[in-house]
Amino acid sequence: MDEAAPPSKKAAKKAEAKARKEALKAQRADARQAPSSAVELDDPAKGFYGQAPTTPIVFSSSAEDISLRNFSNGNVEGKTIILRAWLQTSRTQSAKMAFVELREEGNWTIQGVATATSEPPSRSHPSRPMVRWIAGINPESFVVVESEVQRPIEPVKRCRVSNFELRITRCYLLAPAPAILGMTLAAANRPVVDFDDEAIGAKAGVKEEEETDKKGPPAASMLVHLDNIAMHKRAPVQQAIAEFEPPSLIGAASEGGSNVFRMPYFAQEAFLAQSPQFYKQFEIAGGRKRVFSIAPVFRAENSNTPRHMTEFTGLDLEMEIRNDYSEVLYLLEGVLLYIFRQVYRIFKDEIELVRSVYPSSEILLPEPGQEVRLTFTQAQQLLREEGPAEFRHVRDDEDMSTPQEKALGALVRQKFNTDFYVVDKFPETARPFYAKLDDTAAEGSAEGAVKVTNAFDMFLRGQEILSGGQRINHPDELEVRIRAKGIDPASPGIDGYVQVFRQVGVPPHGGGGIGLDRIVAWYLGLPSVHLAAYYPRTPRRLLP
Amino acid sequence: MDEAAPPSKKAAKKAEAKARKEALKAQRADARQAPSSAVELDDPAKGFYGQAPTTPIVFSSSAEDISLRNFSNGNVEGKTIILRAWLQTSRTQSAKMAFVELREEGNWTIQGVATATSEPPSRSHPSRPMVRWIAGINPESFVVVESEVQRPIEPVKRCRVSNFELRITRCYLLAPAPAILGMTLAAANRPVVDFDDEAIGAKAGVKEEEETDKKGPPAASMLVHLDNIAMHKRAPVQQAIAEFEPPSLIGAASEGGSNVFRMPYFAQEAFLAQSPQFYKQFEIAGGRKRVFSIAPVFRAENSNTPRHMTEFTGLDLEMEIRNDYSEVLYLLEGVLLYIFRQVYRIFKDEIELVRSVYPSSEILLPEPGQEVRLTFTQAQQLLREEGPAEFRHVRDDEDMSTPQEKALGALVRQKFNTDFYVVDKFPETARPFYAKLDDTAAEGSAEGAVKVTNAFDMFLRGQEILSGGQRINHPDELEVRIRAKGIDPASPGIDGYVQVFRQVGVPPHGGGGIGLDRIVAWYLGLPSVHLAAYYPRTPRRLLP
Repeated sequence: MDEAAPPSKKAAKKAEAKARKEALKAQRADARQAPSSAVELDDPAKGFYGQAPTTPIVFSSSAEDISLRNFSNGNVEGKTIILRAWLQTSRTQSAKMAFVELREEGNWTIQGVATATSEPPSRSHPSRPMVRWIAGINPESFVVVESEVQRPIEPVKRCRVSNFELRITRCYLLAPAPAILGMTLAAANRPVVDFDDEAIGAKAGVKEEEETDKKGPPAASMLVHLDNIAMHKRAPVQQAIAEFEPPSLIGAASEGGSNVFRMPYFAQEAFLAQSPQFYKQFEIAGGRKRVFSIAPVFRAENSNTPRHMTEFTGLDLEMEIRNDYSEVLYLLEGVLLYIFRQVYRIFKDEIELVRSVYPSSEILLPEPGQEVRLTFTQAQQLLREEGPAEFRHVRDDEDMSTPQEKALGALVRQKFNTDFYVVDKFPETARPFYAKLDDTAAEGSAEGAVKVTNAFDMFLRGQEILSGGQRINHPDELEVRIRAKGIDPASPGIDGYVQVFRQVGVPPHGGGGIGLDRIVAWYLGLPSVHLAAYYPRTPRRLLP
Repeated sequence: MDEAAPPSKKAAKKAEAKARKEALKAQRADARQAPSSAVELDDPAKGFYGQAPTTPIVFSSSAEDISLRNFSNGNVEGKTIILRAWLQTSRTQSAKMAFVELREEGNWTIQGVATATSEPPSRSHPSRPMVRWIAGINPESFVVVESEVQRPIEPVKRCRVSNFELRITRCYLLAPAPAILGMTLAAANRPVVDFDDEAIGAKAGVKEEEETDKKGPPAASMLVHLDNIAMHKRAPVQQAIAEFEPPSLIGAASEGGSNVFRMPYFAQEAFLAQSPQFYKQFEIAGGRKRVFSIAPVFRAENSNTPRHMTEFTGLDLEMEIRNDYSEVLYLLEGVLLYIFRQVYRIFKDEIELVRSVYPSSEILLPEPGQEVRLTFTQAQQLLREEGPAEFRHVRDDEDMSTPQEKALGALVRQKFNTDFYVVDKFPETARPFYAKLDDTAAEGSAEGAVKVTNAFDMFLRGQEILSGGQRINHPDELEVRIRAKGIDPASPGIDGYVQVFRQVGVPPHGGGGIGLDRIVAWYLGLPSVHLAAYYPRTPRRLLP
């Protein structure tokens, strides 16, 4: 190519656009296929590998969870470990042997080996079909493996953990990647070749580097990086550069379009973020195990009450789920209880000063191990049976009103002696489309029973302070729920969201969001959230 | 009043609006008068009190700066200290004796006593005119006092520091408050009585509490609190509730109106903040000694370059100045150098990983004590004398261009062996209206000489990473500079800003702002700031 005249910029753009369209088509078609060869039914190693079951996976009782970054601390050799990781490459050495590279966060990688024996398969002996299956997993799929840590014959230089390797004995596919990625990890980790952000219309595809660097993998333009946002973020170089910051300006109304501020933005229209929800999920798709953010969020709601503001500070967290969504619930509950206990210890003087002006009772917190967690159904039952008369007929499939919440807070305080508690398993009618349905309940429940979600709220003095839960992590399941909510999956804002789940495999995850101003106000028992904000914004007030 | 029928809501609002207008008028008239009786010219204590001179104040050589919150650590009795504080009350006991209450941050208060003797005035003996002058200082003025710490006859229960008092020997007024405050501190520290935020139009005034609570000082509505934002923030209860968070939505284009995003906002128009500049200054007016913030800022600039984004994260700091603006310069310079040194120590692996993809040289930092600080004039002279030919005629009264900055960076590296340096004393033509002019230079300089400011930029590898300086803290001076920049002081956004300086006395202060994404990008030598942002926003790009 060096001799040929370089193609004109316009022609190059056109060619890139075409390449993208084709890549996108291929990717879409591929996503509908099984991502790798199916488990062979008569394989004696059946059960030790395959698509992850919906029920919890059973590992060896001796297996430990150890992160790769902790391999240098202590003796791991000979241990049986469980690793949840991105499979970034796989290759077969022979019909009996496959090598994979597994990656946790950043560039924490290790080599895995699966070796079939002719002995009967057991915990320590994969079968040939299992080896073949592992070698066929699409790169960037998310897997969980059980393996024994051993010393390689010689250091594995390609991997950051070079002095150990994993002898794989079980391997399950938690989230498959498509066969063709919009951008490979190798490309994502190369220098961006072009920062021109002129809009082209197409949405995916890899641009071959025009410079003649024949040795490396192709590099991509910034446009391609951003169109393949999850792969962009998975690149170790990108994870080394930046921390998560959700944007305020967004290109489409994200969650349905109501109560969103819109504004002219050069040749297009911009919207103000109503929450960092989609973006923190993109971080999980982008290979982070846990992220948090502190950022303003905006609600164009014409509510002139002491509980509402049009701009407030959102504290958000999102995390990978290892086994069960209750990991998210326990973590958030623990964080809040820790904060409530510490804040009084550290800021006693300030809190007492506030109480001298705005009297409030001390907050009752549960003893460790005595945390109160009600299901939504239990909470409604409590209200029906012991609450005020007007709540005698509250339903299990309808969200709680603010007066209901306050009445529940009084009942919980009286019965359980705590001002802080969790209400779990909200009905799907009360949650957005991305809330994961509770599979266990659905299977065993009667016809017409209320569908509930793995979603919860946390309350303080009868007021909601945190909303969280597990999110759907499979694109088809997501589309079903989006349609069930009467939203078109192809509508602006929604399409790009679902597309991220098709671009790559996304592990199970969940999280929660806190309104900082509200949690401060309710903790201190203030009469208005406007006192907790430093410059409260209401439908009528933008100054100072 | 208890017997009379309560006035209708509408009538009450009208009356309140009228009261506010009158209060505002009185306040404005008053601000133009001397805030307290003038120093008597034949007073032998002359020089120990009065309006602060523009030259540095000379204190006793033994005097120490000790904050009230540090009074409990160590033996302060008998020490001579310097305290910069808000004078919150003053009263005369007799012609020979005045009591004041002095407040630092929050509710850190102490009693001060000034006692005149008939002996010749000296360091330890105020005169009667001095006592009278101190007693006449308007509440909420900002003063600096030199005093001896002594034990009071009995504990001063009204003050948080109750077991000590200050025997005042010198007292200077740094920033006078008006005789009539829009809201007193006592009112600001009472519970807000009304959260109705219906706009009224008028901008100041105190509303008498309608409830019959005859014992306390009058309480005020949230509207009055927000219209008197500095007093609202000075209230200890408010400082105990919240930390500084600048808003993104603002009611007027702040700094001139260009490059600002605007949007429909219910019945009015809203703008997106271009910087937290005014708000961090309001915090200093509101009685904080130092504030910082991390918040998005927005620029509606149609610049499609690797250096520009329409949304980025601003790191901002603002602080009270004790003696000289170089305190701000040294602090910011020290913070940056500390970060640069630590970040390489802590994140060496990540930085080397980034360098393996985006090669960059190691950053040269100055040895402690060898920091490079050029004046703008020196920098331009260097460019003229030793820079590329095209910069042979750069002027001292014109801002540097990006190519000039880069050429300067190369020259400084070559001459001083550092990639980090400060350029100070920018010409007033290159700075916004709120930049404080360098008084010392103006006095001694020739007719027609370039007016310079106490403002600086900090550079890394020839690119600006921080902009900072001293701000004007007197409203009249501010108005002069606003007019000199061709802006109407009564224009939206500007009027409210100047008004805050009229509402209360604001101490000398300064600060700086950093673009987080740029500092990361230039530190790592990245080809575009878009790589440092997690979701870069450009005029053409809002997705994902």
